[in-house]
Amino acid sequence: MERSLKSLAHEVGGRVRGDGSVMVSGVAGIEEAKKGDITFVSNEKFLPKLKETRASAAIVSQEVTDVSLPLLIIPNPHLAMAKILTLFTQRPSVSGGVSDMAWISPSARLEEEVTIYPLVYIGDEAQIASRATIYPGVFIGSQAKIGEDTILYPNVTIYPRCIVGKRVIVHAGTVIGADGFGFVKDGKVNVKIPQVGIVEIEDDVEIGANSCLDRATFGKTLIEKGVKVDNLVQIAHNVRIGENSIIVGQVGISGSTTVGRNVTLAGQVGLVDHIEIGDNVIVGAQSGVNRDIPPNQVVLGTPPLPHWQFLRVTSAWSKLPEMKKELNILLKRVEELEKRAGPVKKASKRRVR
Amino acid sequence: MERSLKSLAHEVGGRVRGDGSVMVSGVAGIEEAKKGDITFVSNEKFLPKLKETRASAAIVSQEVTDVSLPLLIIPNPHLAMAKILTLFTQRPSVSGGVSDMAWISPSARLEEEVTIYPLVYIGDEAQIASRATIYPGVFIGSQAKIGEDTILYPNVTIYPRCIVGKRVIVHAGTVIGADGFGFVKDGKVNVKIPQVGIVEIEDDVEIGANSCLDRATFGKTLIEKGVKVDNLVQIAHNVRIGENSIIVGQVGISGSTTVGRNVTLAGQVGLVDHIEIGDNVIVGAQSGVNRDIPPNQVVLGTPPLPHWQFLRVTSAWSKLPEMKKELNILLKRVEELEKRAGPVKKASKRRVR
Amino acid sequence: MERSLKSLAHEVGGRVRGDGSVMVSGVAGIEEAKKGDITFVSNEKFLPKLKETRASAAIVSQEVTDVSLPLLIIPNPHLAMAKILTLFTQRPSVSGGVSDMAWISPSARLEEEVTIYPLVYIGDEAQIASRATIYPGVFIGSQAKIGEDTILYPNVTIYPRCIVGKRVIVHAGTVIGADGFGFVKDGKVNVKIPQVGIVEIEDDVEIGANSCLDRATFGKTLIEKGVKVDNLVQIAHNVRIGENSIIVGQVGISGSTTVGRNVTLAGQVGLVDHIEIGDNVIVGAQSGVNRDIPPNQVVLGTPPLPHWQFLRVTSAWSKLPEMKKELNILLKRVEELEKRAGPVKKASKRRVR
Repeated sequence: MERSLKSLAHEVGGRVRGDGSVMVSGVAGIEEAKKGDITFVSNEKFLPKLKETRASAAIVSQEVTDVSLPLLIIPNPHLAMAKILTLFTQRPSVSGGVSDMAWISPSARLEEEVTIYPLVYIGDEAQIASRATIYPGVFIGSQAKIGEDTILYPNVTIYPRCIVGKRVIVHAGTVIGADGFGFVKDGKVNVKIPQVGIVEIEDDVEIGANSCLDRATFGKTLIEKGVKVDNLVQIAHNVRIGENSIIVGQVGISGSTTVGRNVTLAGQVGLVDHIEIGDNVIVGAQSGVNRDIPPNQVVLGTPPLPHWQFLRVTSAWSKLPEMKKELNILLKRVEELEKRAGPVKKASKRRVR
Repeated sequence: MERSLKSLAHEVGGRVRGDGSVMVSGVAGIEEAKKGDITFVSNEKFLPKLKETRASAAIVSQEVTDVSLPLLIIPNPHLAMAKILTLFTQRPSVSGGVSDMAWISPSARLEEEVTIYPLVYIGDEAQIASRATIYPGVFIGSQAKIGEDTILYPNVTIYPRCIVGKRVIVHAGTVIGADGFGFVKDGKVNVKIPQVGIVEIEDDVEIGANSCLDRATFGKTLIEKGVKVDNLVQIAHNVRIGENSIIVGQVGISGSTTVGRNVTLAGQVGLVDHIEIGDNVIVGAQSGVNRDIPPNQVVLGTPPLPHWQFLRVTSAWSKLPEMKKELNILLKRVEELEKRAGPVKKASKRRVR
Repeated sequence: MERSLKSLAHEVGGRVRGDGSVMVSGVAGIEEAKKGDITFVSNEKFLPKLKETRASAAIVSQEVTDVSLPLLIIPNPHLAMAKILTLFTQRPSVSGGVSDMAWISPSARLEEEVTIYPLVYIGDEAQIASRATIYPGVFIGSQAKIGEDTILYPNVTIYPRCIVGKRVIVHAGTVIGADGFGFVKDGKVNVKIPQVGIVEIEDDVEIGANSCLDRATFGKTLIEKGVKVDNLVQIAHNVRIGENSIIVGQVGISGSTTVGRNVTLAGQVGLVDHIEIGDNVIVGAQSGVNRDIPPNQVVLGTPPLPHWQFLRVTSAWSKLPEMKKELNILLKRVEELEKRAGPVKKASKRRVR
């Protein structure tokens, strides 16, 4: 596919400077780009590289005076790049049909234009909506529902009765609906609490590879629309994640915890169970969160501190040994001063808090 | 299935207050419960909600005076709930038979009433004991043994020669018996140490989804009976985990480390190699343990501290910048005092520890 | 297979003390070894155990005077053990052929002597080189390339166009080439950035179970030759890992970060995006690295400190509450001294840094 720069600007917004009739057929990084590609500069410091790129056009956030390259000027070049790249990479949905090397229950319901690869298993009364694509090695349990245009990559497991919305993408190896980790001690023996709830994933969610979303004990584990989950993430039973939140790789969220809308949990964060993370919160990488976080905060650390405080604390942290040393020296100097001042008549009361 | 409250009390212990003939057919949380359900209150503070529930009966730990609902009174309502829920959810084992879309070695031995789903692979001389259930996508390597009533969920991989006990549950995507991570440097090149041992999993173990239990270099990696392992857990070669221990999500246990009986490792804990964790130890979430922990302790942090000390340390931790400031101010005040006191005749020796 | 001690010494280097004609047919730990085994002692403190072993010979790093066992003396017994064990465990490559229960695209190219197990999926124009072994449940996407003698264990997923080198081992459940985690905010909505790059894995790499290596946004995610990656590791888009580096279990490496050659990242380490880790760096377990690390350093902690400093800081860390207490006591004593010294004529300026 080939598009003129002008028509791309029309599609994603922004204005053209220079030759709008230049034809573009791909998107590439500034160094790898070749003739026919459009490239992009999100960070001002890379603007000088525009002089050397072989790209046919560039997406930038501001006028660049000393460059002859045709430009698409738009406030958010990164977003424009994503949209243009999507234009060039999305293919018209063509059903690959239903493989006769898949095992499909006679009671399963497949809507029109689904693609079912070989080596897929679809259980009793499961429903696969229009244009869904189910890759090899996927297991879909009985009574599970897969929404329209959803893609399940290879070796994904969907346990019985779980619900996956429309336009959802689930990457390879991810497990949706395994039993929540619920046991009660009977003396020393761990007695299993049957997990009779489900997982529900709303529309436009994307989930990375080898992640785990456990079914609820009762009720449901809920991933609201537009949430993006990375690889190797653990989401325990009865968790709820609000719209458009971002859960980065290797995060672990314990049972019954609620994450608000538009939240970002950075890599390797852990949340204890039964807490509430407010809307728009950002939790820094590797933090261990053991309490509710009110909305609109940036927190970091274990236990979590406001961002500015965390930076001050960790800065002081590396000076700890010196502080300890100084404290000891000071003690000696005070002892010396006290000796020279002679005995106190009345003992001062030492307050220790 | 329907059971009278009285018969449930007889089954799990406890006594009935009110109408023991009320019929119960399910278990549900206090807010979701409907007519026919029994609900439960583990935490006193939710007792007032009993007035509003639509449940037909409730499991409680103490007499509740102002509620007309029939009650099952028992010291551990949570445990009673688990047992009753198990009664209502367990189905009589009915073999689904052996699918002709599975690949089964002629030398494999399948006992009676096994269920082998389509798309399963069972290698040479593998043994599958009575009433085991093997879901689609499972790989069972040659000479591996799967015990009675064990369930392997979809896409589980059991490497050759590994042993899985009776009534074991392994959730989807978990890998048992991959090579331990053992290499020796030969100059800069990493030379692989062949991993010729196995993994042995004893009876009544449950393992979550996408976890990894590596085979031993020599001998075996051993998971003793009743252990419960959550999702995305890494258990390295030659690790041994004692009876009834609980290993929560995303924990990593390094090679040759021994975990005692009845231990709890909370989420994202890491243990270094070749250490020993005593019986009944609890290690708090995200802790990094680099030394032996004697039995019956609660530890937390990296490196781990006794629980009470960890709380004091992290409380002081957030005050570090203020401490640093105070220390500097104090230094100035001492300097001022020294100036006013005049020169010291004999220099005091400053002790620095 | 049986080999004389003398011939083993000839094969791996080192010299024999005692009867070089003793026959050896296996390798075992010092306690498990039986007649016919060779055992090894890497750590001096286990030398006394040589008196009790039933092994027929032992690999040691030094002369042992009071033992009658035939010895192979060599500077690195661990390495010699790895090499001898490899001798005894490697089998001549025998092709298992191509199962007719695999699904193989007519346009895929399979070279001679490959082993394709049942339940494998091989996509259009994929290439499988000589003597590669593809276990059940593996998915190989279109145009992916698998090198000579490479082994893909069960349920591995290779996304389209990814390249896997020669003699590579990928353990069960690992996902290579899933989409990198790239989104741009459009208001509150997360817009996906299509990930059009690939993953390239060079020769002699080994990757553990259930790990994830994401494809690049543009260009490639690159794992250079000889790298060893453990289980449950997350390697994000556009990461590059240099030759012979070791990435231990549950490490997470964020997008576009570069790891040098011969680096060790210990368990559960996290690296932020767009940083550079120099050659020969060692990062201690659970560290959170948020900045470039120059070559040849050992760092530890979050944020990372040089190893010696980390030990001092964490040692002081556990004394924090006592320091806080001492600081308060000292304050009182200084106040007392100031009271006794009377008013200061000119206020000293308190410096706060």
